[in-house]
Amino acid sequence: MGVPQFKELRRVYGFDEVSISPGPVTINPDQASVEFPLGAFNFAIPVLASAMDAVVSPSFAVKMGKLGGLGVLNLEGVWCRYEDAEGVLQELANTPQEKITALLQKLYSAPLKEGLIGQRVREIKSGGVVCAVSFTPQNAKRMSPIAVEAGADILVVQATVTTARHVSKSYRGLVFSELIDMVKVPVVVGNCATYDAALELMETGIDGVLIGVGPGAACTTREVVGVGIPQITATLDCAAAREEYYQRTGRYVAVITDGGIRTGGDLCKAIAAGADAVMLGTPLSQAVEAPGHGYNWGMATPHPALPRGTRIKTGTKGTLEQILFGPATVTDGTMNLVGSLRMGMGMVGAFNIREMQRAPLLYAPDIKAEGKIFQMAQRG
Amino acid sequence: MGVPQFKELRRVYGFDEVSISPGPVTINPDQASVEFPLGAFNFAIPVLASAMDAVVSPSFAVKMGKLGGLGVLNLEGVWCRYEDAEGVLQELANTPQEKITALLQKLYSAPLKEGLIGQRVREIKSGGVVCAVSFTPQNAKRMSPIAVEAGADILVVQATVTTARHVSKSYRGLVFSELIDMVKVPVVVGNCATYDAALELMETGIDGVLIGVGPGAACTTREVVGVGIPQITATLDCAAAREEYYQRTGRYVAVITDGGIRTGGDLCKAIAAGADAVMLGTPLSQAVEAPGHGYNWGMATPHPALPRGTRIKTGTKGTLEQILFGPATVTDGTMNLVGSLRMGMGMVGAFNIREMQRAPLLYAPDIKAEGKIFQMAQRG
Amino acid sequence: MGVPQFKELRRVYGFDEVSISPGPVTINPDQASVEFPLGAFNFAIPVLASAMDAVVSPSFAVKMGKLGGLGVLNLEGVWCRYEDAEGVLQELANTPQEKITALLQKLYSAPLKEGLIGQRVREIKSGGVVCAVSFTPQNAKRMSPIAVEAGADILVVQATVTTARHVSKSYRGLVFSELIDMVKVPVVVGNCATYDAALELMETGIDGVLIGVGPGAACTTREVVGVGIPQITATLDCAAAREEYYQRTGRYVAVITDGGIRTGGDLCKAIAAGADAVMLGTPLSQAVEAPGHGYNWGMATPHPALPRGTRIKTGTKGTLEQILFGPATVTDGTMNLVGSLRMGMGMVGAFNIREMQRAPLLYAPDIKAEGKIFQMAQRG
Amino acid sequence: MGVPQFKELRRVYGFDEVSISPGPVTINPDQASVEFPLGAFNFAIPVLASAMDAVVSPSFAVKMGKLGGLGVLNLEGVWCRYEDAEGVLQELANTPQEKITALLQKLYSAPLKEGLIGQRVREIKSGGVVCAVSFTPQNAKRMSPIAVEAGADILVVQATVTTARHVSKSYRGLVFSELIDMVKVPVVVGNCATYDAALELMETGIDGVLIGVGPGAACTTREVVGVGIPQITATLDCAAAREEYYQRTGRYVAVITDGGIRTGGDLCKAIAAGADAVMLGTPLSQAVEAPGHGYNWGMATPHPALPRGTRIKTGTKGTLEQILFGPATVTDGTMNLVGSLRMGMGMVGAFNIREMQRAPLLYAPDIKAEGKIFQMAQRG
Repeated sequence: MGVPQFKELRRVYGFDEVSISPGPVTINPDQASVEFPLGAFNFAIPVLASAMDAVVSPSFAVKMGKLGGLGVLNLEGVWCRYEDAEGVLQELANTPQEKITALLQKLYSAPLKEGLIGQRVREIKSGGVVCAVSFTPQNAKRMSPIAVEAGADILVVQATVTTARHVSKSYRGLVFSELIDMVKVPVVVGNCATYDAALELMETGIDGVLIGVGPGAACTTREVVGVGIPQITATLDCAAAREEYYQRTGRYVAVITDGGIRTGGDLCKAIAAGADAVMLGTPLSQAVEAPGHGYNWGMATPHPALPRGTRIKTGTKGTLEQILFGPATVTDGTMNLVGSLRMGMGMVGAFNIREMQRAPLLYAPDIKAEGKIFQMAQRG
Repeated sequence: MGVPQFKELRRVYGFDEVSISPGPVTINPDQASVEFPLGAFNFAIPVLASAMDAVVSPSFAVKMGKLGGLGVLNLEGVWCRYEDAEGVLQELANTPQEKITALLQKLYSAPLKEGLIGQRVREIKSGGVVCAVSFTPQNAKRMSPIAVEAGADILVVQATVTTARHVSKSYRGLVFSELIDMVKVPVVVGNCATYDAALELMETGIDGVLIGVGPGAACTTREVVGVGIPQITATLDCAAAREEYYQRTGRYVAVITDGGIRTGGDLCKAIAAGADAVMLGTPLSQAVEAPGHGYNWGMATPHPALPRGTRIKTGTKGTLEQILFGPATVTDGTMNLVGSLRMGMGMVGAFNIREMQRAPLLYAPDIKAEGKIFQMAQRG
Repeated sequence: MGVPQFKELRRVYGFDEVSISPGPVTINPDQASVEFPLGAFNFAIPVLASAMDAVVSPSFAVKMGKLGGLGVLNLEGVWCRYEDAEGVLQELANTPQEKITALLQKLYSAPLKEGLIGQRVREIKSGGVVCAVSFTPQNAKRMSPIAVEAGADILVVQATVTTARHVSKSYRGLVFSELIDMVKVPVVVGNCATYDAALELMETGIDGVLIGVGPGAACTTREVVGVGIPQITATLDCAAAREEYYQRTGRYVAVITDGGIRTGGDLCKAIAAGADAVMLGTPLSQAVEAPGHGYNWGMATPHPALPRGTRIKTGTKGTLEQILFGPATVTDGTMNLVGSLRMGMGMVGAFNIREMQRAPLLYAPDIKAEGKIFQMAQRG
Repeated sequence: MGVPQFKELRRVYGFDEVSISPGPVTINPDQASVEFPLGAFNFAIPVLASAMDAVVSPSFAVKMGKLGGLGVLNLEGVWCRYEDAEGVLQELANTPQEKITALLQKLYSAPLKEGLIGQRVREIKSGGVVCAVSFTPQNAKRMSPIAVEAGADILVVQATVTTARHVSKSYRGLVFSELIDMVKVPVVVGNCATYDAALELMETGIDGVLIGVGPGAACTTREVVGVGIPQITATLDCAAAREEYYQRTGRYVAVITDGGIRTGGDLCKAIAAGADAVMLGTPLSQAVEAPGHGYNWGMATPHPALPRGTRIKTGTKGTLEQILFGPATVTDGTMNLVGSLRMGMGMVGAFNIREMQRAPLLYAPDIKAEGKIFQMAQRG
């Protein structure tokens, strides 16, 4: 009111604040196609499993591929530090919570064994599925060729925040266009959360961007450094960048919302906010086949000086197939995620993902509260 | 702030966020008329009982009718799957919570017995009241004539989201104008929650629309598929459609807010948002006469692959007459719902429902919190 | 977004959502005058005690007057239904919570004894203080002359919602201008919460309006009938009416915020929203001298068919003098209410109530949360 | 909606409501400079320790200085009332919570011993660090020369709300320009929270302003007097005053956000809102070296008539060095605060504090809730 402004604050939105408006036409859920193209690949379902050690093992990646999705194996975690990664994961599951941060810091300070890169890739390829692996920007240039040589089909380059321009004293920033020229497979890069950063990344020639800075259940980046954008706005903005880039160049870059999705409802909202696919961590760590044995932790948790995140107990809900395709034995939206998406598309009248992206979104902060407290008090 | 927008988010409102402004004139509650016309019928109170198996049995519908309202019997639930529906309801009441979803899924997979349709209608008609029954869109065309033949006076066609245009591979979408021509009784259709969908439904010739996608206490559609509109905005938008349609055609279609109403305050707010009547589930399941024996569950709960909702313990508060007309023995607004409406109309100065629809609504998110935590801490 | 609107929702505010901006000049608290003129009377502090049976007894009214404020005795409660009102209040204090609504309904159905009106007035007057008494609009015309005859100095006419125009079948609406002509003492009327209603009441010639529909800790009007306006907006709007009326007529009508005030902070906010004084119930019921013995209940609680409110345990904090003037032994703002007001006026730089009314108000929903959860978790 | 407004409410923001947007360029955290100039001094880190008795002792101030920051010793607390301040602090730590307000009121009513002023200053100076001490405005003029004479390098003048113009009957308001002329050392003044008040203070010639009225974890000023501005808006507004004053005069006055900061995330947000440095109380009271023995209390807590605040148990987390520079053993952002700032600057692409001040801020009320409740429920 008359006072000079130092800066304006932009309103941004998260999953719990929005809902999708039903449409004037409805379709039967079995009419909805949920296919997801990425580079030359076409996946039956728009779901990637996160490159987290508690979520994707080589065998989990195979299972995920056979079910129509894509599991991304982290090649800088326990699978490339330990021959017996399974044993390490078992040790982590058996360690009490008060000792877990120290143990994670210790276990992840073991050196990377480059010889394991090819072995892990081959374990996935032997399952007959598309193989996706992830590196950090620091190691991507050096290690990616090893993985691609061994047969990796898709490369994911991922850090908490990744930009097309990174300044460092100790190493030359990764130039993504050079990486793409070198590996000659589709490259997915993340994470980013803004229009500008997404557009710059798209202009390097990549095939997909991972959206999300700090939203996951196993991540506390927002508490520790104050940086973050809620997933609905992050997805909306990066989808706007995709449309702008698509109209200008004719090249369509996949927008993949990564982190913070807990239910089928969140998955539907991510698509309605403009995502082409989602990357899931905690929800898939609840699969019987997940290597975390009912736990999950973020890849920033083992940071030696500034751990951001902790191990959370996610429990085991059912097989991966049940979590993705049901039948659901719970009613909170955490099972039959693909069935939820189809049903949501039915209510909205969307025949495919591109149409679902056009469903109106509502800012409905009360959507959860309405009747919820009452309900909780009375659930008998 | 300069960034291109993928889409805008519209602000929408729920019961807990609004309150009604008192008016410059007050009237005595006994001056207020709460009559509700529907088709050729005129009900003494603007209250329908939900077509839920835990709420309306044939005898409950008779009681509801004698008290001036309208109970809707669901003819695709236990009453048309089992001769001994009472026994099935007793079994459900005796089953522990952890087994209830599986039991509901099993019990509701029993086939519909069309012979029971006429029997249930006659049980209601023998009570000397108006008889309303409900079907899903899939079965409405085939089963409605049987119900009307047996004497049903009002037909309700209801699914989670219903539109005038539905696309399906397996069956031809229900054409409501054809249904109306066929049954020649008032038809009420739901649920819908948007201006466009409501207007299209009205244009088919129906007599009432049920408003509400996913708001009820026994429903988790919003968690599972992310689709939903809070009830105040849904009611406001569909009331706007009713006014538009009324001005254009001279035909007045009843707007009935269905779901999420827990107290007399919510009921008053629904009317002030433009509703002509309300449909109540959980509040009426608390009547001694309700068939749920102190429980309620949504009709989407038994879904075989994607259950949305669960059984909630609602308890038993008093007779249906007490819940509707008092005297109240509790002070939280869950008893004497019609008395609450009359008192609210008195404070607003509204002589009838149409005048109550014109009362100003306030966006008052704090309205509950103010003094509430303090109060709870101190309630002795 | 293009959809026709049935009605717009106005944003309104409550105590917990706002804070007062400190000013560019500060003054010492002892520089601030908190005097409150009402009609020909001038009170040392801008505090009235609510006309509630658990708050004001004749002896409490005397104590309140001696401390510079004004206690209002309800002449339609236990003090005019029972000779031995003290005994009745003791019985209420000794009754367990689950039986209290029924007991209140029973005790308040005893007939009013008009002979007690004069007796109670004289009990207050014998203490040598200004005597204020309250009636409902239904009884005000008949009973007020009795009270004034006995010596009452100020008349309060109060119902949940009171307007200048009330429509009833059973009695002619009270005409305030006639009442004022008849009693020839200052008349305070309430409750109201809107600009229009306040302005119309002021135009009848009254000296003060009570602001607040349903905000008190002992009241559940908002749950039961959905009607209510949070106190900050109600006070702001009625203060705007006062200014409009004052500019037009030169007559200044006191705006008294009644209900929902729990702390010195709330008191300061009410004044900053435009109030000239406040009426306190629950905070004063915590005085050793209060007749409620550590409990409070609203005057709508005993309603025979639709009780709105319940007995709350407020406890006993200290003497009335301590609650008003300290020293405080607690740090939550519930003691030394007048000291809080002086300190707030010091931070704002306000020398009197009229200047405090001009302090900027901020919409600061986070003001309480910031650091609060952290603090609670750590309070050792 | 057409109703005349008594006043408008301005929207203001606190830490929990905002987040920082990541930038289009990232830098390595070790590239970021966090230096903080104040007057002729240059500090390695932008962190001051609060002038609270439970936070800064003479030895703590020395430790703080050696780590690159600045500890401010309160010369009106126990350190200048008692020779054996350590013993008093031990007594406070050993006293149960229900007796603490009374004990604080008693202990702080002991007279100030002016002889201790010089002694405490020399204790700090003997450590070889910059010495900062604080007085209230009432005592600053009389006592500051004693402290400066003894070697104090920086003077802090602090009250809950301080303005350039204060009106008092009992003493002449402090004229800051006179004080500055007299002491000839940098003067920091606080607290203020508005553009106007900050600008007026800057115009007196001071070197820094402390921002924050009532936000700290150990303070209840907002509950008690209703006055306060959440820290993000307070910092934004005072930073706007700094820019205005800087552009007009070329003199740069430090803006120091004081209070309410609990985590590295909050610290980053304060800088992004325009602060040059932060003053920390509760987070540093958790250092092994803090004199509060795991407790903290505000300097308004011992107020004899209107205590605002209480002793809170903060616990002991690690050494001061660990809290400032890590390594962190917890993942909630309360350790390695400077590391958090560097990492945040890295994600934003800010090479120094001035660049971090330009990072976009988002209004993201959901930023904490998203996934948080889920997470808490599942943390194993």
